[in-house]
Amino acid sequence: MFHIGRLSTVDLEEEITPEESLDYDNSENQLFLEEERRMSHMGFRCLEITRWVICGLIGFLTGLIACMIDIAVEKLAGYKYLAVKQNIEKYTELGGLSISLILWAVLNSAFVMLGSLAVAFLEPIAAGSGIPQIKCFLNGVKIPRVVRLKTLVIKVFGVICSVAGGLAVGKEGPMIHSGAVVAAGVSQGRSTSLKKDFKIFEYFRRDTEKRDFVSAGAAAGVSAAFGAPVGGVLFSLEEGASFWNQLLTWRIFFASMVSTFTLNFFLSIYHGKPGQLSSPGLINFGRFDSDSVQYNLYEIPLFIIMGALGGVLGALFNIINYWLTIFRIRYIHRPCLQVMEAMLVAAVTATVSFAMIYFSNDCQPLGQDNTEEYPLQLFCADGEYNSMATAFFNTPERSVRSLFHNPPGTYNPVTLGVFTLAYFALAVWTYGLTVSAGVFIPSLLIGAAWGRLFGILLSFIIWADPGKYALIGAAAQLGGIVRMTLSLTVILVEATGNVTYGFPIMLVLMTAKIVGDYFIEGLYDVHIKLQSVPFLHWDAPPTSHWLTAREVMSSPVTCFNRVEKVGRIVDVLSNTSTNHNVLIKSKTCLASSRLSQRKLQLKDFRDAYPRFPPIQSIHVSQDERECMMDLTEFMNPTPYTVPQETSLPRVFKLFRALGLRHLVVVDNENRVVGLVTRKDLARYHVGKDGLEELHLAQT
Amino acid sequence: MFHIGRLSTVDLEEEITPEESLDYDNSENQLFLEEERRMSHMGFRCLEITRWVICGLIGFLTGLIACMIDIAVEKLAGYKYLAVKQNIEKYTELGGLSISLILWAVLNSAFVMLGSLAVAFLEPIAAGSGIPQIKCFLNGVKIPRVVRLKTLVIKVFGVICSVAGGLAVGKEGPMIHSGAVVAAGVSQGRSTSLKKDFKIFEYFRRDTEKRDFVSAGAAAGVSAAFGAPVGGVLFSLEEGASFWNQLLTWRIFFASMVSTFTLNFFLSIYHGKPGQLSSPGLINFGRFDSDSVQYNLYEIPLFIIMGALGGVLGALFNIINYWLTIFRIRYIHRPCLQVMEAMLVAAVTATVSFAMIYFSNDCQPLGQDNTEEYPLQLFCADGEYNSMATAFFNTPERSVRSLFHNPPGTYNPVTLGVFTLAYFALAVWTYGLTVSAGVFIPSLLIGAAWGRLFGILLSFIIWADPGKYALIGAAAQLGGIVRMTLSLTVILVEATGNVTYGFPIMLVLMTAKIVGDYFIEGLYDVHIKLQSVPFLHWDAPPTSHWLTAREVMSSPVTCFNRVEKVGRIVDVLSNTSTNHNVLIKSKTCLASSRLSQRKLQLKDFRDAYPRFPPIQSIHVSQDERECMMDLTEFMNPTPYTVPQETSLPRVFKLFRALGLRHLVVVDNENRVVGLVTRKDLARYHVGKDGLEELHLAQT
Repeated sequence: MFHIGRLSTVDLEEEITPEESLDYDNSENQLFLEEERRMSHMGFRCLEITRWVICGLIGFLTGLIACMIDIAVEKLAGYKYLAVKQNIEKYTELGGLSISLILWAVLNSAFVMLGSLAVAFLEPIAAGSGIPQIKCFLNGVKIPRVVRLKTLVIKVFGVICSVAGGLAVGKEGPMIHSGAVVAAGVSQGRSTSLKKDFKIFEYFRRDTEKRDFVSAGAAAGVSAAFGAPVGGVLFSLEEGASFWNQLLTWRIFFASMVSTFTLNFFLSIYHGKPGQLSSPGLINFGRFDSDSVQYNLYEIPLFIIMGALGGVLGALFNIINYWLTIFRIRYIHRPCLQVMEAMLVAAVTATVSFAMIYFSNDCQPLGQDNTEEYPLQLFCADGEYNSMATAFFNTPERSVRSLFHNPPGTYNPVTLGVFTLAYFALAVWTYGLTVSAGVFIPSLLIGAAWGRLFGILLSFIIWADPGKYALIGAAAQLGGIVRMTLSLTVILVEATGNVTYGFPIMLVLMTAKIVGDYFIEGLYDVHIKLQSVPFLHWDAPPTSHWLTAREVMSSPVTCFNRVEKVGRIVDVLSNTSTNHNVLIKSKTCLASSRLSQRKLQLKDFRDAYPRFPPIQSIHVSQDERECMMDLTEFMNPTPYTVPQETSLPRVFKLFRALGLRHLVVVDNENRVVGLVTRKDLARYHVGKDGLEELHLAQT
Repeated sequence: MFHIGRLSTVDLEEEITPEESLDYDNSENQLFLEEERRMSHMGFRCLEITRWVICGLIGFLTGLIACMIDIAVEKLAGYKYLAVKQNIEKYTELGGLSISLILWAVLNSAFVMLGSLAVAFLEPIAAGSGIPQIKCFLNGVKIPRVVRLKTLVIKVFGVICSVAGGLAVGKEGPMIHSGAVVAAGVSQGRSTSLKKDFKIFEYFRRDTEKRDFVSAGAAAGVSAAFGAPVGGVLFSLEEGASFWNQLLTWRIFFASMVSTFTLNFFLSIYHGKPGQLSSPGLINFGRFDSDSVQYNLYEIPLFIIMGALGGVLGALFNIINYWLTIFRIRYIHRPCLQVMEAMLVAAVTATVSFAMIYFSNDCQPLGQDNTEEYPLQLFCADGEYNSMATAFFNTPERSVRSLFHNPPGTYNPVTLGVFTLAYFALAVWTYGLTVSAGVFIPSLLIGAAWGRLFGILLSFIIWADPGKYALIGAAAQLGGIVRMTLSLTVILVEATGNVTYGFPIMLVLMTAKIVGDYFIEGLYDVHIKLQSVPFLHWDAPPTSHWLTAREVMSSPVTCFNRVEKVGRIVDVLSNTSTNHNVLIKSKTCLASSRLSQRKLQLKDFRDAYPRFPPIQSIHVSQDERECMMDLTEFMNPTPYTVPQETSLPRVFKLFRALGLRHLVVVDNENRVVGLVTRKDLARYHVGKDGLEELHLAQT
């Protein structure tokens, strides 16, 4: 019996099994090899240049989208705050501020309703920040519709609505998803949503190349969001890469840089100062001056304490959000309910904000420099403004910046304490709503608030710059929630424009991660786990040396011979949903065109990629069923194999390092005895009492 | 016939073949698996904590060494310059400055002689920057004695001597090597040079773990040298990693951060300002103020032009150095000749410097702030100093800083032009001498000089801050010489303490790399190639799909059975030097202890790692030769295999991604037909006319 490998990288059952696996290993079948061998050295060089061009395009488009979101949000939020402010000013003396509250709440809800409607009814995958989905994609889990143009449009529209609607969300997370969609679209030279195929870049129509470009897109997204090109590259690598390749990294970096630059350039034009390239990202933390950024040795233990606090608060955030998400999965799964919840949150956010502004009597003198864009006088004396309003009556980005940079004494400790609590509750409630929105900025805002509070309290004992502690608090809180490490350090360093804080930020993130991991995983991992997708971590669980390939593999496996009867192929493929382990998950377009006596070419696969027609769509007559079909051309004659005694960590390493989709298990005589798939490996994890088996979504 | 895998990761012939391969894949033999299976979950956690502790130690020690080097160089150079300065001042009016020249030249030569003697006679591997060696180590090429304590001592001593001796070298490159040695030593818990085994960290005595720690050490070295912890991590990854693992990266980052912090802390004590953590690295580029760092759109084409110029000049540097190195290999291979060459270079450097100071009449008024530490009045008026002297009469680090930060008008264009030419020639000549020294700082200095010149010339047309152009020029020149990409961008950004220049620096490095690569490879790659070590690049050559495993593999292979006669084992092992392909390169300690009827344990392997006694050292009697020996326990029952039709890129990918040492090629019935080793893969590269076969050093 011949040992037959895989035919191709993608299979037919997308609609049947929602989560399939991507294959980041090229299937070196005869057709592929023939093409590669035909190509000259010059051809490869052209391909390489094309890759650079595509990365440049990805960066450019991502930067443009970021610019669009930024301007749209600024305009809309500006109009909204102006309207509410005028209304409040009108009624402050007249009495009847409840009208202002209603106006505010209605405006917020209206914005959020629009965004939520689009997400809930048109493209539910566009909900949330999209970072878990991109993590899964880069890991190799196939989630349908995640990189389609339609998703991008809804995402962009949704994020504009939810930020303008005053929710406790940021516009940064969705940028990462947007960048990834742009990358997938541009690199494949077509759009499924538009049903348009530009017939370009056809060489890149396979999972390996697509993954590389999507990494670049995600990096470009981070880069545009935070003005952090290096952070973007590290984000892509930390979340997705399995193999580090200098050229690839350099290309990703290029995409990131172009994206920052594009955003920078267009924003400089928008702000009327063309050519002044000094506002690199969507979020601008403002520049920390060289003099105020010094830190001293005795502050390091304080930073560590703040990191631990951030870890605890982050874990609390994740735990509450976890229960909330479970509640949502159980009870709020109808789209109209989801929209209503989003609107409710918007109204509550407005009410809470209003109440807090109303009841706080924390008046501050107006600064000379008018750093506040919408200073609310409310019940304050002339020339003063309400400081709670700067925190609530603003987009979250601006609030973060005020917390970092306003001079000591701007905020009252009680104001900050109450604000932290209120915003924490709102942010927990908001993440997971059916709107597109990110969690970065709310986390930073919560952290900046309690960090500044910490700094103020500290300044009763020793002198402390509250802005610095706000930054450290923001890092601690964000680290406690998302648990990113190196990339987050670099993102924060780049966003503050100053490397001096590198060491404290690293310490804080490290402490936050260690403390937080003790309680629960990071927010993204929690959400990935809730979707029970077969996500592969970096290593096999350490205590899994007991397990061998024989125990983890799926068997029995249905094999085809090199030359096989059409009838059998059709039968087996028709039954894939019940029969799990077909070694050759053949594509039906293969069978169909073969039946029509036309020679199947690589182009046919590429035109269909990544959605191949199901076998059921093809009628095979009784005569045709008796024909023989030669599969040699389409099979991978040299798949990676492991003996059945191989230990799980070894199988895992091979699988993860090469980004495989399935790994063939053979016996001593090289006969196929089983197949290890992503699900077989993702099942095992380390629990409280050692190795545990997870229950993953059944395919 | 059974298919028998490898026994262990390291083999006996270190002394016979100078360049062997490291095995970054754990050999999962029975002994190893038994140990892993015995370990509890808690045990793995303890190991993980131990790894963190070791990384902390590595960072700490590396920082300490950097601190020591810094202080020693500063002191020695200080005394030297003071003596020469006093001498010059004495003779300026008396006449007889030739005495000063002789004093200077003699002092320089004396320092360099000491350093060169140590390197040439005690440990030749400590010559140069050590970066090519570390690159090779991380790539998997085993170079003897590269990570020994003795090498470290000589390296540190050598670098102090050569920098104090006024050569055109930097102390930064050797820090990377030093960090790597520290890492290898600490993580193995013993020193071969001291013949001392602390019996700790024995679990980490294998290539995989050692490599991870060495990555951390190299990163810590970069971090200490440039105050660039993120850059250090990226350097390690760019040069060495094949598989990105979040935990590992985070640990490497920790080592880097600790190293910067340690250096920072001790230097702050040394400078009498304990706790002021503001001088992060060995080199301190000084802080660029936020106002002066703005760049404008129209400057970008200028930056690109400078990048191209840097690429051309870098390529020129590499080409000249390449010929020089070939000349050295042919004619200057005796240690005493090497020492004499180094002394000659030192004397010439002093003479050239002196001549240029003497003949330049570029006087500048002394600044109020006394930024110059040794202002030389020479023939200038009172209250003025000779500006050429600031460039030459200083350690290169200080000269770079002056070029970056001195106010416009400090330097005369002619001075800069002559200086660039002279220093370029000296630096080319110096790199490759038998002294320990780095090429980073000289490159930066050359670049800063012509960059500043460029800026000055530009300011005749438009206003331009020459300091900014000095920075861009430095980046361009360094990029043109070493061709590093992402990591260099980050290192430079971190060293300048300002992220605003990220985009221009990236553009410049990219241009410099593209232009430079057109002419010749990077300096490190040139030197790696000259040593003809089997260095594996990121990917297989693109046009190599024609080749299959059958064509590249080495064959025939000598196989052992599971149970084999001792006589045959001894015979085969004794002949390994002539018979290349023994599948089981058994270690002799194995045979020896087995013969003495003691059960061989994992500990025996670890005690001997990485240098196992040769088979020749064991006497086997005729009776013993007839005994049978069971190899089951020591073999890897599940090695990675590939079918013989596998294409070269596929073999390459598996080999590179998993860091293998040899890959077994099997036929359809799973019989061993050949073995692919590192050398088999490294042979192929893309030349001018397509695929070429290299001739590598014969083993």
